[in-house]
Amino acid sequence: VKVRNLKISTGGIQVVLLRKEDANKIGVRHGDRICVESGKKKAISIIDITDDSKLIKKGEIGFFKEINELMKLKTGNKVSLSIITKPRSVYHIAKKLRGERLNEEDMNEIIKDITDKKLTDIETTYFVSACYMQELTNREIISFIHAMINNGKKLNFGKKIVADKHCIGGVPGNRTTCIVVPIIAAAGYLIPKTSSRSITSPAGTSDTMEVLCDIMLSISDMKKVVKSTKACMVWGGAMDVAPSDDILIKVEHPLSLDPIGQMLASVLAKKKAVGSTHCLIDIPVGKGAKIESRIKARKIKRKFEKVGKAIGMKVKVTITDGSEPIGNGIGPALEARDLLWTLKKDKRGSKVLLDKGTYLAGKLLKLLGEPKPFKLAKKIVDSGLAEKKFFEILKAQGIRYNDANKIPIGKYRASITANHSGKIKAIDNRTISRIARLAGAPSDITAGLYIYTHKKQKVSKGDILFTIYSNSAMKLKCAKDYALEKSGYVIK
Amino acid sequence: VKVRNLKISTGGIQVVLLRKEDANKIGVRHGDRICVESGKKKAISIIDITDDSKLIKKGEIGFFKEINELMKLKTGNKVSLSIITKPRSVYHIAKKLRGERLNEEDMNEIIKDITDKKLTDIETTYFVSACYMQELTNREIISFIHAMINNGKKLNFGKKIVADKHCIGGVPGNRTTCIVVPIIAAAGYLIPKTSSRSITSPAGTSDTMEVLCDIMLSISDMKKVVKSTKACMVWGGAMDVAPSDDILIKVEHPLSLDPIGQMLASVLAKKKAVGSTHCLIDIPVGKGAKIESRIKARKIKRKFEKVGKAIGMKVKVTITDGSEPIGNGIGPALEARDLLWTLKKDKRGSKVLLDKGTYLAGKLLKLLGEPKPFKLAKKIVDSGLAEKKFFEILKAQGIRYNDANKIPIGKYRASITANHSGKIKAIDNRTISRIARLAGAPSDITAGLYIYTHKKQKVSKGDILFTIYSNSAMKLKCAKDYALEKSGYVIK
Repeated sequence: VKVRNLKISTGGIQVVLLRKEDANKIGVRHGDRICVESGKKKAISIIDITDDSKLIKKGEIGFFKEINELMKLKTGNKVSLSIITKPRSVYHIAKKLRGERLNEEDMNEIIKDITDKKLTDIETTYFVSACYMQELTNREIISFIHAMINNGKKLNFGKKIVADKHCIGGVPGNRTTCIVVPIIAAAGYLIPKTSSRSITSPAGTSDTMEVLCDIMLSISDMKKVVKSTKACMVWGGAMDVAPSDDILIKVEHPLSLDPIGQMLASVLAKKKAVGSTHCLIDIPVGKGAKIESRIKARKIKRKFEKVGKAIGMKVKVTITDGSEPIGNGIGPALEARDLLWTLKKDKRGSKVLLDKGTYLAGKLLKLLGEPKPFKLAKKIVDSGLAEKKFFEILKAQGIRYNDANKIPIGKYRASITANHSGKIKAIDNRTISRIARLAGAPSDITAGLYIYTHKKQKVSKGDILFTIYSNSAMKLKCAKDYALEKSGYVIK
Repeated sequence: VKVRNLKISTGGIQVVLLRKEDANKIGVRHGDRICVESGKKKAISIIDITDDSKLIKKGEIGFFKEINELMKLKTGNKVSLSIITKPRSVYHIAKKLRGERLNEEDMNEIIKDITDKKLTDIETTYFVSACYMQELTNREIISFIHAMINNGKKLNFGKKIVADKHCIGGVPGNRTTCIVVPIIAAAGYLIPKTSSRSITSPAGTSDTMEVLCDIMLSISDMKKVVKSTKACMVWGGAMDVAPSDDILIKVEHPLSLDPIGQMLASVLAKKKAVGSTHCLIDIPVGKGAKIESRIKARKIKRKFEKVGKAIGMKVKVTITDGSEPIGNGIGPALEARDLLWTLKKDKRGSKVLLDKGTYLAGKLLKLLGEPKPFKLAKKIVDSGLAEKKFFEILKAQGIRYNDANKIPIGKYRASITANHSGKIKAIDNRTISRIARLAGAPSDITAGLYIYTHKKQKVSKGDILFTIYSNSAMKLKCAKDYALEKSGYVIK
């Protein structure tokens, strides 16, 4: 059949359009999957049906943009079609749902099919549910890691020591990566950091960094950046390292799920695939953070260090205070602005963010074998070397802003004030995240919160607690209405 | 914005198309949900994006067929759009995934949002997964039933006694409904039977009946049929009775899941909503049937009878032999043909199917209070009254075939023969179903199997066990390859 490129995009799902007569001839219906082939290029797609000859003619197949981008064919090119039977991995997923364990081969087939987009969203969702409810064993996690690494690209920087860090998340504004990476690089270590986009928060490190510079680097561009600066801060998804992870994250998003075993596998697979040898993991614990209890944090710490050892990586876990948002900005642009202020020691920056980043850098320098790690980290920050290195990396990745005041933020604004006077006892991370997300973060990068008051501070009735920003009047209203009902602040 | 109807159908998912500029103005992206309103009509839809002015102009919204059918507007009509925030029910689903229980109100919100199509496939899948892995309590099942009944139409036939039956399924070819319903109606009772389409089998009762007559009746047409014949055999989905169920079934389909609690709720909600007072439930037990152990069957029996009582219905469960396919035809058209042969006592029909149907009718007559129920059922069959009543119902619903030999079946055929001589010890239901489904059943109604040999029969090497039918040469090949490797027959 002949291709006709249509200018319709779904935002992810791969769709082709067939004429009713053609679909009947092949024996497929709308919603079925089909494999489109041309030479070595191959794509799995869902079928939509039409009987409108203005859209496509008989003997033609309409490519939605997602398929067009994969196949890169022109209207009129020929492709062959073949029917896809249900992949075997679907039966492995059903097995896991029934409570049975998955072996190395099952896991590999599932991850391979997810990577090749052979599974539908519904099937992938069942896999995530199963991992969430039937907790993965360490052995399953190790299989998962190997499957993720093997079904993606692997990087090699040709160095004996490659440092890395990761934060479990759930604490809004917690952009310590952007402090730790320049410190470690300034200390002379290689730290090619890849991050993912937000799962449950108003912004992931990648979302925030994208405001400041390009993060969608190819592997060769990333290597150039690392060669010249010893570091990078790029989006892992663009690396094609463990590409299945981004598909899984997309499915986790609607319910803000993040099953422990899968999270562990995802983190360590990405670290291992980029060649990391020493990795610090930060688990912030607090109300509304991803991990709310120290007992659970310690359980995950043990699991991380054990699985890390099994795959030949030095992994150290540190449990930190996650009882309130770190930093003042929440949401991509607001966090980026906060970060620049903080690194430049502008008084509008966040001392808490700077201190936490410096502490984590010290922890990582210790794991790397430095004799006086915390002193070293502090010296690099105080001397301005960290700031210098940060801008060096931004420049190498294609800097967008070096002046915090020039970063555009949401044009619709609303301030939330204290209902009564008193001392701030607690700030719920989940509520703050929810308000920022209702305002449009992270897809609206200018949306989010700027927090004026933190834990232990005293406020008077009518004082501004935070301001909400959004580029959509409707979304601002949603966020404001929610915040007026529930601000997340406990003032006593 | 102005409507433009597009002739594209997805097969279920509700999609509208927006121009990129318009989407940016409103603050939505592809994949977001939007509410389309016109007067009292309202529909929730997923957004696709285009920048092609040939498809739609600025200020226009493109309706895919699914939305067009719901809204019934003409190109050029005006509609208003509003952004949808994440429904609260998503948080209830997350709660259930974490292992917490759902109360009456949570359950009602979930079912309401599923019914209103406010939940995406991914979110609905999480709900099904949660019900599958965190087994619903009896209290949750009762809430589920009330939620399903309240979010759909209710029927009232104005009679004190309304009989009904249901089979748990998993045994291919098991079309006893079509024997039981005419017997009960011929005995003078009202039995307005609604069925669903296939979940895990090559055909549901609705799929098979649709070959013979119209099953997509409106409530008023169904009432006319029941008034004139005392019975009907229609598709429940077209009744708008517990409409959420068909959305759930669609999501269960890919993994052939059917969580016990949800199944119980679905069955009893539909029975209660159509006003049934006395209901017989058949649980076939056997290898590859939905229920494989008698212990589990008895557990479900107790749950059914207990929950039935709690919602004020007389429910009786009978556990039957499900150790091999019942009847000779598997797949919609092949089962329909088999059924006509069986009722007309043609020698190509199935005695086992007739006997089982008659037995179940006896059981139901007993529940209805008949003094000699089994004798009565047999008399109705032997006298030809059952056959007469069956055709009376078909005619009232718009008969398509009364001659079995005229029903078209798959034009591509392949016979599977015995590898060696011996006695048939077992036939695995699941394998038979899978072969029929690979051949294209139920979406290809002509696809499936005709079984020549049953359990306990002796066969010689080379004897035909069954013939596979399909309208797609590719699908026939898939089914045949699978059957050659694994026929489901144990011959010793």
